[in-house]
Amino acid sequence: ARPRVGYYYSGKKPGRVLAEKLHRILVGDVKSVPVVVSEQCTIYDAVVTMFIEDVGTMFVVREGGFLEGVISRKDLLKTTLGGQDIHKLPVGVIMTRMPNIIYAEPDESVWEAARKLIMHEVDALPVVRPVNNENGAADLEVIGRLSKTNVTRLFVELGEGND
Amino acid sequence: ARPRVGYYYSGKKPGRVLAEKLHRILVGDVKSVPVVVSEQCTIYDAVVTMFIEDVGTMFVVREGGFLEGVISRKDLLKTTLGGQDIHKLPVGVIMTRMPNIIYAEPDESVWEAARKLIMHEVDALPVVRPVNNENGAADLEVIGRLSKTNVTRLFVELGEGND
Repeated sequence: ARPRVGYYYSGKKPGRVLAEKLHRILVGDVKSVPVVVSEQCTIYDAVVTMFIEDVGTMFVVREGGFLEGVISRKDLLKTTLGGQDIHKLPVGVIMTRMPNIIYAEPDESVWEAARKLIMHEVDALPVVRPVNNENGAADLEVIGRLSKTNVTRLFVELGEGND
Repeated sequence: ARPRVGYYYSGKKPGRVLAEKLHRILVGDVKSVPVVVSEQCTIYDAVVTMFIEDVGTMFVVREGGFLEGVISRKDLLKTTLGGQDIHKLPVGVIMTRMPNIIYAEPDESVWEAARKLIMHEVDALPVVRPVNNENGAADLEVIGRLSKTNVTRLFVELGEGND
């Protein structure tokens, strides 16, 4: 039978409708601008940058903006507590280094990226674009940041129901 | 309960359906256990507790578990950087103190709490139950924690579409 006006065909539970909607929102639609430092940046300068930019996670890049490492507020707090000379120690010594970095790409769903945040217990992911290098491998150009704040903001926007 | 047929009444845009579903999920359904310290706890001990419990925000309570303050990883990082004696300085000196604390109650929606997280730029809210004291005012008993991690985890669960 054809649906009457005021009804529409579903055959799916509402939870399923919601789930499919969530899967259609892409990382590229909600990502933030990345905050990056170089590997030689001192711990002290990294903390200052983190406060000025007001982020919880920064990415360590080499020339060309390619991903080398990730450094979190938690990593920095552990180091400042340790009594080391934070004016001399570079972030390269304490950062999480490739290939142990979880990242997202702009055309994957925010849902998939959110799942990575939860599964790997990190606050933010670098959003990257793979670029083939002369060795036939891929370098990861950092083009954004996807954090629990982005997911929370999206959750709030979806609850406004304006779309 | 919705009729178990292949059609269901709508008359609403899917975005509206999603929004209403989000508003029905309560803070009490997704909150985590709070991590609390006393006002006399030193900065050093607070950082150690934060690492052991693996949280980004802790609540400062007085006897009875009543809310006095909030302390974040960011507050602690600022203090450890400042070169103060973190083995002597108590958290009471640097915490955000009542009445300047944003909180949530268990029967409000996660959406409303998420909006507070975004609007006030905090990572977590204490979940409290107001208890009238002898002065006719309300003390806030800390009964949980609602963070961007809880919101992100809920977002992931909603995307699984199993409910």
